[in-house]
Amino acid sequence: MAQQGITPREKDYSQWYLDVIAAGELVDQSPVRGCMVIKPHGYGIWEAIQADLDARFKATGHVNAYFPLLIPESFLSKEADHVEGFAKECAVVTHHRLRSKEGGGVEPDPASKLEEPLIIRPTSETIIWHMYGKWIKSYRDLPLLINQWANVVRWEMRTRPFLRTTEFLWQEGHTAHATKDEAIEEATRMLGVYRDFARDTLALPVIPGIKSATERFAGAVETYTIEAMMQNGWALQAGTSHFLGQNFAKAFDVTFQSAEGSLEHVWATSWGVSTRLVGAVIMGHSDDTGLVLPPKIAPIQVVLVPIWRKDEDKAAVMDFAQAALESLQPHFRVHLDDREKMKPGAKYFEWERKGVPLRFEIGPRDVANNAVFCAKRTGDKKFGITVDDDFIDRVRTELNSIQQGLLDAAIARREANTHTVSDYAAMKAQMAIAPGFFLVPWHDDPVTEREIKDDCKATVRCFPLDAQDQAEGQACFYSGRPATHMAIFARAY
Amino acid sequence: MAQQGITPREKDYSQWYLDVIAAGELVDQSPVRGCMVIKPHGYGIWEAIQADLDARFKATGHVNAYFPLLIPESFLSKEADHVEGFAKECAVVTHHRLRSKEGGGVEPDPASKLEEPLIIRPTSETIIWHMYGKWIKSYRDLPLLINQWANVVRWEMRTRPFLRTTEFLWQEGHTAHATKDEAIEEATRMLGVYRDFARDTLALPVIPGIKSATERFAGAVETYTIEAMMQNGWALQAGTSHFLGQNFAKAFDVTFQSAEGSLEHVWATSWGVSTRLVGAVIMGHSDDTGLVLPPKIAPIQVVLVPIWRKDEDKAAVMDFAQAALESLQPHFRVHLDDREKMKPGAKYFEWERKGVPLRFEIGPRDVANNAVFCAKRTGDKKFGITVDDDFIDRVRTELNSIQQGLLDAAIARREANTHTVSDYAAMKAQMAIAPGFFLVPWHDDPVTEREIKDDCKATVRCFPLDAQDQAEGQACFYSGRPATHMAIFARAY
Repeated sequence: MAQQGITPREKDYSQWYLDVIAAGELVDQSPVRGCMVIKPHGYGIWEAIQADLDARFKATGHVNAYFPLLIPESFLSKEADHVEGFAKECAVVTHHRLRSKEGGGVEPDPASKLEEPLIIRPTSETIIWHMYGKWIKSYRDLPLLINQWANVVRWEMRTRPFLRTTEFLWQEGHTAHATKDEAIEEATRMLGVYRDFARDTLALPVIPGIKSATERFAGAVETYTIEAMMQNGWALQAGTSHFLGQNFAKAFDVTFQSAEGSLEHVWATSWGVSTRLVGAVIMGHSDDTGLVLPPKIAPIQVVLVPIWRKDEDKAAVMDFAQAALESLQPHFRVHLDDREKMKPGAKYFEWERKGVPLRFEIGPRDVANNAVFCAKRTGDKKFGITVDDDFIDRVRTELNSIQQGLLDAAIARREANTHTVSDYAAMKAQMAIAPGFFLVPWHDDPVTEREIKDDCKATVRCFPLDAQDQAEGQACFYSGRPATHMAIFARAY
Repeated sequence: MAQQGITPREKDYSQWYLDVIAAGELVDQSPVRGCMVIKPHGYGIWEAIQADLDARFKATGHVNAYFPLLIPESFLSKEADHVEGFAKECAVVTHHRLRSKEGGGVEPDPASKLEEPLIIRPTSETIIWHMYGKWIKSYRDLPLLINQWANVVRWEMRTRPFLRTTEFLWQEGHTAHATKDEAIEEATRMLGVYRDFARDTLALPVIPGIKSATERFAGAVETYTIEAMMQNGWALQAGTSHFLGQNFAKAFDVTFQSAEGSLEHVWATSWGVSTRLVGAVIMGHSDDTGLVLPPKIAPIQVVLVPIWRKDEDKAAVMDFAQAALESLQPHFRVHLDDREKMKPGAKYFEWERKGVPLRFEIGPRDVANNAVFCAKRTGDKKFGITVDDDFIDRVRTELNSIQQGLLDAAIARREANTHTVSDYAAMKAQMAIAPGFFLVPWHDDPVTEREIKDDCKATVRCFPLDAQDQAEGQACFYSGRPATHMAIFARAY
């Protein structure tokens, strides 16, 4: 099989991203425009993300449920902002049967036309709030803390694997509360869960903040976001959490009787992350050799490669490798690459491109030394690890050090590419040299935001939660008016 | 909240099933015809099923992947049997955008009509074999052992929660092999995985067998099935595994170069189980009080109910309950029901209807005894369990005994309702008294099978794998011709 080269980041960052994905066998194009096939190695990353996040959701009191894929067309227009801003580019189901066509093939049976078309969910607020209307009667039914793992479809014109696809996988939390304060607390709590998860599991330091009105979720009162910096200095929105106020409760007439006996509309949040996170990880850590994965989400954390030249060495090497495999298996995701007729070098090449954090080479000399010869995906000289009582601990230490090293590098990169500027000209000049994050005093205004986007392609990524007290008394870096916020501007995916 | 009664099984088995589901808060009807909302307690059962099965798939060498929800219409007609027998009642996507309608609301935008309609997958053989055609070149690429967890849509006219719904959740394994023998071995291996899972996890003894031509999957050469008996003596198909021969490989032109250098079509299997299994568990074990769940898939295995009358007892009871919760949590799915203003009796009632296997009542006297007072969902007198060093082991023993007891009862019920008859009149007479499984010598023929179905509603559930050697020399119980198989006839969901 011919090996495809990987375009260096410096040469063409977009092509590099596609090459890393192809070389890592993460996805393939499907015959359906904008829909990707997630191959086993790519899906394994998503499974690790799911398992970690799901435990965090449950630890914060949430339960999972499942709502229908199909939504009646009329539901979408019940929340006016929601449909205007968001819900129109979607897949519409109009028939429920195929019939044979003259001359072969099939076609939609006109007799099966639906009275009301159905929409494949682009997000589930509408159908979930319809159901919540049936379930919520009293304050005793609140809070309702439900999450769903699901696929959604948004018809996209320009797609890019993981980052923007017509169908994608995600989780969507939908919670209902008796008070405004409680709902805001929930929305910010889940933002914190996302921030911690991104840092501790994905090794991505993200900036938690508030979206400007321009980028707010259609139907939300406030949208919270975590923004990650990619290696080219661009921003990637990695997750959002919305305080929905009473908008959906009013649209679907969901009220509850309070402890005091009054009838009130319910307060809501929703929050989600998607397979886009896999794209964030790829762009955040990989190098010109291919995929680099944080150990916590690597589908394979350790690969064992047995090596022998002479046939008489084979049995001893394979026995040793098998024993090492069995001792590692209870603790790590480990794989023994016992393919015959494939040279060790070709195996190394493949596992590097698949981002496996640790590779253990096992030859006759290693067996004699009762050791494995360890290569780290993130570099450094190879070194031996003795297979003794401390073996598991030493492997764990190496994986932890890779995980921490990736986070440290990402933090350093972000700091090096975050600029505090006080006037727009300085940002524009720097942006032309190298994109990055620009923390600036800002008078929030969709008109000036649009001007800046048209002029230098940068947009407000967020108002960082921890920087807002700096805005007071400052002048907007663009308009000179009094600053209402501190904002981060960046180019974004 | 008014408590809904549960219709006794004897009175109306179908209504009993719906009542158990409603009382257990497992699903709710959605506004989309035939689609159910799976509520948290119902989804928790599916999550436990998924976790157990997924580990079994991985232990047998399979990996997960994800293929698109939408399939080009033309793909469905590539395998002729597949589309004729199966793939026509499905949701058809014809447009990709909504537009605002005069007078309010939205409608499909005529300008967004798709050149080729897309189908929501009713099953994924076609799109997966299209992709396998890109991935498989050489015998080195085989076997390919991939599973997918996904939602599918089949437009159903008559639906019943879990057992038959327009959208359902399932897993579908799709494997590719170099030889016929290897593919048959895979199909039967996965049937064995399903049989073991049904017995050991769902406490359902199932009969593994082969489907008659009438009930074979459209596109398969051979369909293997596991058939479970419900409490009313009806059969429920709980899982199928198909040997697909080279049918899909030929339809999608998937060939490989063998080790000897020749070009050959690939051999295939597919196998799946769905949320239907939740229905099988409900029907298989529940009683007139409500849901009964095997501990291995109960979302809550142990519920703790603290009880106090006097305020001065509250702190001690709650502290003891909290300590018990923390000691149990690492080992079991456990819940502390600390709702205030709700009487213990109402809590017992709710958890019984939700099928929680063990309930621990904790009052001041129990605290004084350093014990919990244990009620088993499956009956017997309540008894104390001392909270000492053996606490976890004793709880585990009780859960295991419930699990085993449910399996034993199901086996006894099946044996009591399985009849060996040698002529059709005997089956028909017995069927009129009480349905059950009828093991009979059978000359396989779709025409006589249809006659029997029309006459007494019984169909061939399967040819049991372990009974086929009994057929030799026998006469068909219906036609008198030489028996080709031993068959199980039953009424079926």
